[in-house]
Amino acid sequence: MKDRSADLPGALETCRAIAQGEWSAEAALRARLDRCAALEDDLGAWVHIDAAGALAAARALDQGAVRGKLHGVPVGVKDIFAVRGLPWRCGSPIWRDRVADFDAGAVALARQAGAVILGKTETTEFAGYQPARTRNPVVPGATPGGSSAGSAAAVAAGMVPIALGTQTSGSIIRPASFCGVVGFKPSFDLIETGGISVFARSFDTVGVFARTVPDAALAVEALSGLELQPEDGMGAIALSTLRSPVWDAASPEMQTAWVEFTDRLALRTRLRHAPFSEGLYDAMAGIPALHARIMAAEAAQALAYEAMIAPDQLSQGLQAQIAQGAAQSSAQRHADRAQMIALRQRAMAETRPGDIWLTPATPGAAPPFDSGTGDPIFNRIWSLLGFPCCTVPILRDPARRPMGVQVVGRHGDDRAVLSVAHWLLERFGAGV
Amino acid sequence: MKDRSADLPGALETCRAIAQGEWSAEAALRARLDRCAALEDDLGAWVHIDAAGALAAARALDQGAVRGKLHGVPVGVKDIFAVRGLPWRCGSPIWRDRVADFDAGAVALARQAGAVILGKTETTEFAGYQPARTRNPVVPGATPGGSSAGSAAAVAAGMVPIALGTQTSGSIIRPASFCGVVGFKPSFDLIETGGISVFARSFDTVGVFARTVPDAALAVEALSGLELQPEDGMGAIALSTLRSPVWDAASPEMQTAWVEFTDRLALRTRLRHAPFSEGLYDAMAGIPALHARIMAAEAAQALAYEAMIAPDQLSQGLQAQIAQGAAQSSAQRHADRAQMIALRQRAMAETRPGDIWLTPATPGAAPPFDSGTGDPIFNRIWSLLGFPCCTVPILRDPARRPMGVQVVGRHGDDRAVLSVAHWLLERFGAGV
Repeated sequence: MKDRSADLPGALETCRAIAQGEWSAEAALRARLDRCAALEDDLGAWVHIDAAGALAAARALDQGAVRGKLHGVPVGVKDIFAVRGLPWRCGSPIWRDRVADFDAGAVALARQAGAVILGKTETTEFAGYQPARTRNPVVPGATPGGSSAGSAAAVAAGMVPIALGTQTSGSIIRPASFCGVVGFKPSFDLIETGGISVFARSFDTVGVFARTVPDAALAVEALSGLELQPEDGMGAIALSTLRSPVWDAASPEMQTAWVEFTDRLALRTRLRHAPFSEGLYDAMAGIPALHARIMAAEAAQALAYEAMIAPDQLSQGLQAQIAQGAAQSSAQRHADRAQMIALRQRAMAETRPGDIWLTPATPGAAPPFDSGTGDPIFNRIWSLLGFPCCTVPILRDPARRPMGVQVVGRHGDDRAVLSVAHWLLERFGAGV
Repeated sequence: MKDRSADLPGALETCRAIAQGEWSAEAALRARLDRCAALEDDLGAWVHIDAAGALAAARALDQGAVRGKLHGVPVGVKDIFAVRGLPWRCGSPIWRDRVADFDAGAVALARQAGAVILGKTETTEFAGYQPARTRNPVVPGATPGGSSAGSAAAVAAGMVPIALGTQTSGSIIRPASFCGVVGFKPSFDLIETGGISVFARSFDTVGVFARTVPDAALAVEALSGLELQPEDGMGAIALSTLRSPVWDAASPEMQTAWVEFTDRLALRTRLRHAPFSEGLYDAMAGIPALHARIMAAEAAQALAYEAMIAPDQLSQGLQAQIAQGAAQSSAQRHADRAQMIALRQRAMAETRPGDIWLTPATPGAAPPFDSGTGDPIFNRIWSLLGFPCCTVPILRDPARRPMGVQVVGRHGDDRAVLSVAHWLLERFGAGV
């Protein structure tokens, strides 16, 4: 399946064309619906495509003044968000017949900004590890990653310019890396999570997929009310590459590509070092296991209702994860929560505003479909710390499969992260 | 209306009696239903009393083994939590006909532990400031406070031994103080919030009302999986009284009662000082305004759907709050979020585990019903910091109206807070 996603205008360009009367919201939507019709059978990116509802919304927008930052932009929404009148299945047979009777806050905010909700995208079971049916549109036979499988694939295939997702461990950065698109997980809690199925309350974060960094920034601006467009100039930014304590989990192909990338980066720019204290770096090595324990404990609570009414309809993997979480001792949970809070404090205390780190987004390119959704090992540290991350598709393995460079900043430094991500994609996106 | 709440066994005693075959869950429930029948017309604490559902649940429990920590304990649930098959109105005409088709995570966890859900308690509009219809059961003509009005009143009137509530600014501590019961707001995010209507995601915290501190601890143990029963001995605890930067907001009656209380406390115990640095204390003075700004900005996002479909059905006050939040500049929001995160870090960095502060729970006793739900000024600082708070009813004004002493600890020190609260209520509860 070839990459045909770049031949339709992105979100910013769509808004501009509609505002200037060159295009209509309806025409913009129809172009995307055509793309869906052509590719969906092979991809399986959607739980439900709401052509009628989207067309009605687009026509209504075309009758009125410009509504907001996403006026006329078709948007896909991960199926753990409630969208009124559409299925809300969360990738689980338990909710196979559920239809939402309200919009999640983030969805209502997108509509307020003029977005056209094209439909619901496939998710792994409750945004955990049990794979969705979605295929990778750019790597034949491979997983698109998870949990936001359908959102990543739909953007990669050009079915929508913007899709909403969530990340608890690596559910935005990983599928974006595997599908060769931009994925942005903002600072923890930057975007409203009400009306979204919970997996782990300490980590669940709403974010977006797009083809360009300004498009991703646009979507998060609409949902957060913040100004986040990439800024020119790296004046206040200190940039370091960071293999991170999980470097050994990177594939030989990623390790080779990473070394080549960092060499070329060093040739083209003067990096101002953004140091981690040695103690903090060492402490980070324990974060993946800590993150996994807290995630299991919180999932056992968040999914208590589903586990009560239909335990047999949870996947074996999720049952095991919940059982492991529920079995943790009080002392372990107390200690884990205290350690999480202390690590978050320490990571802020021992770094400085404007510090940015570049690190692999994933251990490598998308693994085979049947092997699961891939490993979030390069994402757990930042998900636990609540730090914003943006992956840009600028690496390739020898088979030309995409791999992401993950741009990470301190909590609250979302705009700096997006600025560096944009700068990287502009300079290195054409070919690595 | 006289206080008849102490004449029925509390949660721990109910569990013990059922486990030993001295009582049944059904009999325990019927005693509470009788109390509801006698008092509800005057109080208006309930949106819905689910006598049939609760009786079925109690009978089922009586047929089986002890289920968990709340086996056979009747529990009231604030009407912003989803409870399957019961109304879910959130104190708003927008949702007057809604019935929930699932349980909030916290409700499912309560059921797993053997709780019998007696019904839904009244809440202010979306747990904001628009009053509920509920009357104060112990102060004639007064507000019970808000937002968890029905939960506080139901426990104060003995209709249930335990009720669930939430706090965003002062929605647990304030009504508990006004109604003369124990109110416990745990550390932020200690209890699952999925399936609960969101007001402000940075602050919303699930907590409980009870007649005793061990009963409150029991309920939070069931919902969190943590061991939290009060411990004897104050070995690791440093205890200070803290008028706090908002002391001027205290009524003359509270100021008099507080000074008498702290004098008597000093006579009976040797306080080990738990200092705040002067800089932190000064910074705290700005927290109430910061908290109110972030709360408004986040409410505008959390309630975006309701504001979109039925703006005219929001109260004038909530409309104004949402408009104020939506109008905040990007720069203001960025700065406020950064300040919140920095204050949370600093409050942890400049205090020590085991530090406990005693401070007024409210400016005074419950004000008249028609004046609103009272002022959360003594609660905003701790809600923003995410620190656990427990109020105990040990003060009275000259008219014998109850006022609470608020016990505050660092994030994660929930058990120390409960230990001190229990110690205080045991020693000073009989008469101040």
